[in-house]
This record gives sequence, C-alpha cells and structure tokens, in this order.
Amino acid sequence: MSHFLPKSIRDLIEEFSKLPGVGPKSAQRLAIHLLHSPDSRVEPLGRAVLGLKDNVIFCETCWNIAENNPCIICCGEGRNSEIICVVEEILDVVALEKTREYRGLYHVLHGALSPIDGVGPDQLKMTELFERIGKGGVEELILATNPSLEGEATALYIQKHLIDSPVKITRIARGLPVGGDLEYADSVTLSRAMAGRSEF
Amino acid sequence: MSHFLPKSIRDLIEEFSKLPGVGPKSAQRLAIHLLHSPDSRVEPLGRAVLGLKDNVIFCETCWNIAENNPCIICCGEGRNSEIICVVEEILDVVALEKTREYRGLYHVLHGALSPIDGVGPDQLKMTELFERIGKGGVEELILATNPSLEGEATALYIQKHLIDSPVKITRIARGLPVGGDLEYADSVTLSRAMAGRSEF
Repeated sequence: MSHFLPKSIRDLIEEFSKLPGVGPKSAQRLAIHLLHSPDSRVEPLGRAVLGLKDNVIFCETCWNIAENNPCIICCGEGRNSEIICVVEEILDVVALEKTREYRGLYHVLHGALSPIDGVGPDQLKMTELFERIGKGGVEELILATNPSLEGEATALYIQKHLIDSPVKITRIARGLPVGGDLEYADSVTLSRAMAGRSEF
Repeated sequence: MSHFLPKSIRDLIEEFSKLPGVGPKSAQRLAIHLLHSPDSRVEPLGRAVLGLKDNVIFCETCWNIAENNPCIICCGEGRNSEIICVVEEILDVVALEKTREYRGLYHVLHGALSPIDGVGPDQLKMTELFERIGKGGVEELILATNPSLEGEATALYIQKHLIDSPVKITRIARGLPVGGDLEYADSVTLSRAMAGRSEF
C-alpha cells in the first residue's frame, strides 16, 4: 500500500480489497473513482453498506432472506404452495425468479453437503426441509442444487431421505447450456445431455 | 432487480452496480457476501466509504491527493526537487512510486488534453505546471502521460510550450512491455520499440 496516500483512502482500498473478486488494483480504482465522485454518489453507498442488515431477517419457512416472516414469496398470491424448489443459496432464488416461469415456493439450504469442509446436514437447513415436508401439502420437490459434486451429493441425500415419502421428487435437467457449443462441452455434461434427451 | 429481496439489499446492489467495472451480477454477489459477513467486516467498509474524503486535500504544489499541503512527497527528505514527473492521474503516481526507483517529484494534471471531451489546458493543472517551472529550480521534466492519443497530445503541448525554456524535457520510453511477446505487439508499439532501441 502506497504510504503517501491519505489514510482515509488507504483504509477504503484495504476494505475494498477484502471483497471477493476485487484485487488490489481494482480496489484502488474504485476508491479513486469514489474520491472523484460527488458526495451524492458516495454517501448513499456508505449508508447502504451500513444499513445492509437493517430489517433483514430469514423467512422461517423457506429460509430465504426477507423483510417479513413468512416472506413475500411464501405468502405470495398466485404461488403454488404444493411445489417446493430446493436451492443452495439466496442468489439461486434470484436467478430462478428472473426466469419469471417458476411459480412454486423455495427452500434455501444455505450450502451443500461437503464433508471435506465440515458441512453435514446439521449445517444446512435440512431438518427444516424435512419438517416442512412432514407437515404435508407438498406434491413435488424440485432438487435444484448445483450440478457439482456437492450439489449432486446433497440432492441424493434428500432423495434417499424421502424415498418412502409420497412426494414426487425431481431434479433439474443437466445438459448443454442454451447457446453453448456441443464441441466444447465436457463429456460428463454431454453424457447427461444424451441421457436426458426428450422427444422432439 | 428482484422485488422480493429486502429493500436494504436492493439498495446496496444498486449502489454497487454504479461502480465502474461492477455489473449487476457482481453487485449481487458482493451484497450477499457482505450479508453473510460479520458486522466487524461490514462496518469498517461502510465507515471507510463515508469517511473517504475526510482530511483529504490536494497538494497545491504537485496536485496529488494528500493529507498535508505541501504533501509528503513534495516536502519529503531524500527526494530530488530538480526533477518533476508529469502524470495524468493520481493512480499513475501510485504506480510509479511502487517501482521504488524514481526519487524526483510529481505533477498531476488530472487528465489529458481531449478536445472531443471538452478538455483543454484550462481543465487541467497546466497553468500550475508552467508557473511551477517558471519559479526555477527544475532541471528535468519527465512527461509520463499515457502513450495514448490524448497523452501524446498533452506531452506535445507541454513540450511546445516550454520549447524556449532551459529545462530538459524527456518522455518515458514506449516499447514492448516486459514479459510481452513481440509477435503479438501492435505495429505502432513495435515501431516505437525499434526507434527507441538502445545499445546492448
């Protein structure tokens, strides 16, 4: 860190550098950009950071972040409460909501099973999921964990746990991403795409 | 913007999105990352943003940002006040200081001449530069503006303005970046590298 820069700027560069995906050069650029910005741009950012956790709670039904409990999705009109989509993270809900097609509810696990990282079912909202299903009223459970080793293991764990349950359990399709190129697809994805083929 | 996210989170995503080089997806990731971070990580960032401009002034000699006037470089021990390096931006000073080789002073123009953007000499710290040189005591002026159209024009403007001055005017070398590949260098850079060759 350049010692000749004013302390307030060095502080901000340091804090920016701690953010994921922000290297020291980007942190410098961001800090100097803000320095050149009017206060009307800088202050809202500072206040938004400090106020981030204000009024933010977890919905105790789906465990998504929310302002109310149950959240706006869980008590939303026109949503089908018979379908629950299980995802790993909050941002997965954001991504799925953006499609504007899914009208069921969610369940956010807050991670995936990963014994090597010490993440077992107890570290996830797994018990809460099974209790929720145990209450009845659920027809389909869509396992939308990531198509990674951990995500697949998590999906398998849930499926095995509910094997005697009458709930229909589905897994999101794995295949070629739209706009992707078959030639560059890895062989596991390609195998999945072939196995999951549907009638034209 | 996903309407179901709490307002405080949407606010922060929006503010992050306004930063240069931060797209909507990165802004989301940053906001959710902070949401999962302890307050001991979030608060220093917020306070650093709000306090960014505290005690930051411009050195009225070199026009770099500083806490004192003249700044720590301008009144620094062991610095050669007979050499002034002219740069466009504050971050250029940071980059040059990092080399730990240059021991002269600086002059930050805060931009480069760009008629198309309405930037003339009056929008830069140009008069201040000429006044500073007029006071005497300067032996060499290193023009370290960017090797871009605007940077070259700015260097040329300064050189022409000081053509009758006894001050030695030099331009930083343009050539192949160290670690670069001759094969991929553009032809202008290559021409410069050839023209600027030195004895081995």
